[in-house]
Amino acid sequence: MFSFLGGNAGTWRVTSMTTIVGEPLPAVSHISIVAESFTGSDDLARHAIWILRGITSNERYVTRAEKEQLVAVQQDLGRKESTSAAVIPIRKSLSWWALTQDERRDILAGQSRHVRIGLQYLPAIARRLHHCRDLSEKEPFDFVTLFDYASDDEKAFNQLLQELRTSPEWEYVDREVDIRLALS
Amino acid sequence: MFSFLGGNAGTWRVTSMTTIVGEPLPAVSHISIVAESFTGSDDLARHAIWILRGITSNERYVTRAEKEQLVAVQQDLGRKESTSAAVIPIRKSLSWWALTQDERRDILAGQSRHVRIGLQYLPAIARRLHHCRDLSEKEPFDFVTLFDYASDDEKAFNQLLQELRTSPEWEYVDREVDIRLALS
Repeated sequence: MFSFLGGNAGTWRVTSMTTIVGEPLPAVSHISIVAESFTGSDDLARHAIWILRGITSNERYVTRAEKEQLVAVQQDLGRKESTSAAVIPIRKSLSWWALTQDERRDILAGQSRHVRIGLQYLPAIARRLHHCRDLSEKEPFDFVTLFDYASDDEKAFNQLLQELRTSPEWEYVDREVDIRLALS
Repeated sequence: MFSFLGGNAGTWRVTSMTTIVGEPLPAVSHISIVAESFTGSDDLARHAIWILRGITSNERYVTRAEKEQLVAVQQDLGRKESTSAAVIPIRKSLSWWALTQDERRDILAGQSRHVRIGLQYLPAIARRLHHCRDLSEKEPFDFVTLFDYASDDEKAFNQLLQELRTSPEWEYVDREVDIRLALS
């Protein structure tokens, strides 16, 4: 379980916050990312303007063949050259969640080629996906993805996002905020 | 989100508690099932010997065709003749969760015919699946399923469980407790 604490101090400095679709998040100047679940009564959490929480979980869509391709090239977060990062919380619409597994897989893999797009940007871009939807009934987002990369790779990262955002899968995204970070 | 509160009083009277595999749950005489997430400080929760929590979520495995078959015949919980019920928490092993989606689907659908087995017992047996695994890092079970049925259908229900428990999917179940209930 990871918490993303937005506030006036923290490990990462916010360089931009862009609302792609849906309701914005309140502006913050810094974000801390901690491997804990915070509640409002924790000391660190009291100083946060907002907290997003998510849990890493089992794979939901990739096949064994795709997973092997990914594992062969993907890198861990936290490389010393990764001085840039992005936190991108998204929510998908109720119509997405009403689809069955085969329908979601068909949009994600067949129409949108999500994994194939992602593979093109490995190993430069490291990522970790956090699930929020099933933590409670009132989570503001379904997923939070954390990416990190060398600052020279920001252009490639923007290209990756553009490919995903113009894919059929993204028609189901009804809230997305793109938060860019630099080590502070 | 639903909470299953085991204790010395409650809506349902426990008629039996059988540990199928793994660590038992402490014995209780009654269970209450409430559409809330309880914490230890709530009044009702203070009297509980244990609390299981789970959230209803999107479908993870069924195809559109299977879903249509299920929807056509399945019944809601709480029919007036449903005076018997079962609460069955299960946990699957780490090796299950390390499988990819296609591998899990192949075991569940191809080898174990989970949906096809379940369909044979509809509409007599009503069920609701609750997911626990992604609520936190320390949930004792991955799923809690609540079933209800007329007391005459208990034999059929036992047959359903036997079919599932002897399927390849159940080789991945490393904790299961079978709790039978009657309206108290």
